[in-house]
Amino acid sequence: MMPASSPFLLGILGGMGPLATADLLQKIIAATPAERDQQHVPLVVWNVPQIPDRQRALAGTGPSPLPALRDGVSRLNRLGASHIAIACNTAHHWFDDLQASSEAPLLHIADAALSQLTTAAPPSERRIGLIATHGTLAAGWYQQRLAERGMTPVLPDADELETLFVPGCYAVKRGEVAAGGRLFEQLAERLAERGAERLILACTEVAPGLDAIRSRWLQRSIDTTQALALACVALWRPSSP
Amino acid sequence: MMPASSPFLLGILGGMGPLATADLLQKIIAATPAERDQQHVPLVVWNVPQIPDRQRALAGTGPSPLPALRDGVSRLNRLGASHIAIACNTAHHWFDDLQASSEAPLLHIADAALSQLTTAAPPSERRIGLIATHGTLAAGWYQQRLAERGMTPVLPDADELETLFVPGCYAVKRGEVAAGGRLFEQLAERLAERGAERLILACTEVAPGLDAIRSRWLQRSIDTTQALALACVALWRPSSP
Repeated sequence: MMPASSPFLLGILGGMGPLATADLLQKIIAATPAERDQQHVPLVVWNVPQIPDRQRALAGTGPSPLPALRDGVSRLNRLGASHIAIACNTAHHWFDDLQASSEAPLLHIADAALSQLTTAAPPSERRIGLIATHGTLAAGWYQQRLAERGMTPVLPDADELETLFVPGCYAVKRGEVAAGGRLFEQLAERLAERGAERLILACTEVAPGLDAIRSRWLQRSIDTTQALALACVALWRPSSP
Repeated sequence: MMPASSPFLLGILGGMGPLATADLLQKIIAATPAERDQQHVPLVVWNVPQIPDRQRALAGTGPSPLPALRDGVSRLNRLGASHIAIACNTAHHWFDDLQASSEAPLLHIADAALSQLTTAAPPSERRIGLIATHGTLAAGWYQQRLAERGMTPVLPDADELETLFVPGCYAVKRGEVAAGGRLFEQLAERLAERGAERLILACTEVAPGLDAIRSRWLQRSIDTTQALALACVALWRPSSP
């Protein structure tokens, strides 16, 4: 932990993908009650996307991103980051390793999302759809947090992941954001047909995709990037009002 | 200058304001021909907006931002930035001082904008409107570059700066982006009435404002943030195609 005298500086570990990082930055700015530049959150963004693919690493078909992730966390610490946010759900697979190598505390995106879900969803909604990578689903951190609240996750099946989620995700990464959004929307419809009353967009590529097609599903979703932005802004108190 | 062996890393000196910085980041991503995350521009954004107000400093009514700007440039250099872009036109007032204190070369936003103007504007267009802070207009770097190309600048008058530009700029900074856009649009109309055939949006708050109201003036403008994004992307060649 940083000594109490250290100034507040939010570090963002980004690049996974770059568009999701820019999305987090915009959502932090929009969520900050600032009257002028100087009241906005001081932050530094390490947006170096030359990190081995997280989905492939977890599928056993590519190298581990952990050294590159550790390097980013180390640089943010050396810059004086007092807190670090990771603009990628799947990268949270390495959260404990990264926290162990960081003086600055890391925010966990699933904690931010569940806090937001508790605020946004009426208590009657118990079945929550998850749109996420295979790696995030296999890690189970959303399912565990939902179960602790008595909620039931509704998950994509293997075919839906392969034909809708994964192509949607890589479409956003190559700039075909609306095409990705249309695939994510099909997946949202499938989860709703199986009873999901609300969705958690537990991959940071999903909200930009749905936003590009102005999908009605955004209104019934917890956007984990937005939730992380709110958690970051809640930490920041400008010294001069 | 960096040794030739240093890896490419774009440093962005941001925070002036934060929204303009996020806008630059998004425009860099959109302008990059990338098929996957790893082909995007590696960059680090120093977005710490606790920098004394540039417009007030140049008006003699506030402290100099130079120490804070130098600190940002110094941190970007220590992180290994190979090139630095400044996401604010007015801050280019201190460009020579910052370049003198930086190992990494700085890109000048006015060079990027004029290069873009030469590409975009038909040769028949000779009268170019400038939407900029008093400080940027007083520095004259846009007027000089236009004169070198035989073009005539069309400038806001003192009343237009005070009643349209400055309130528009501070509206964007406090998140009232569309309200700022409407003021900038009125200024664009005035410059057009005085013969401007095309505009240079020579303040990075202007394009987000005009974009928020989907202003028709964007089509007849050089957006200096977009021009800077293109100049940054042109420097980047991913090592693996």
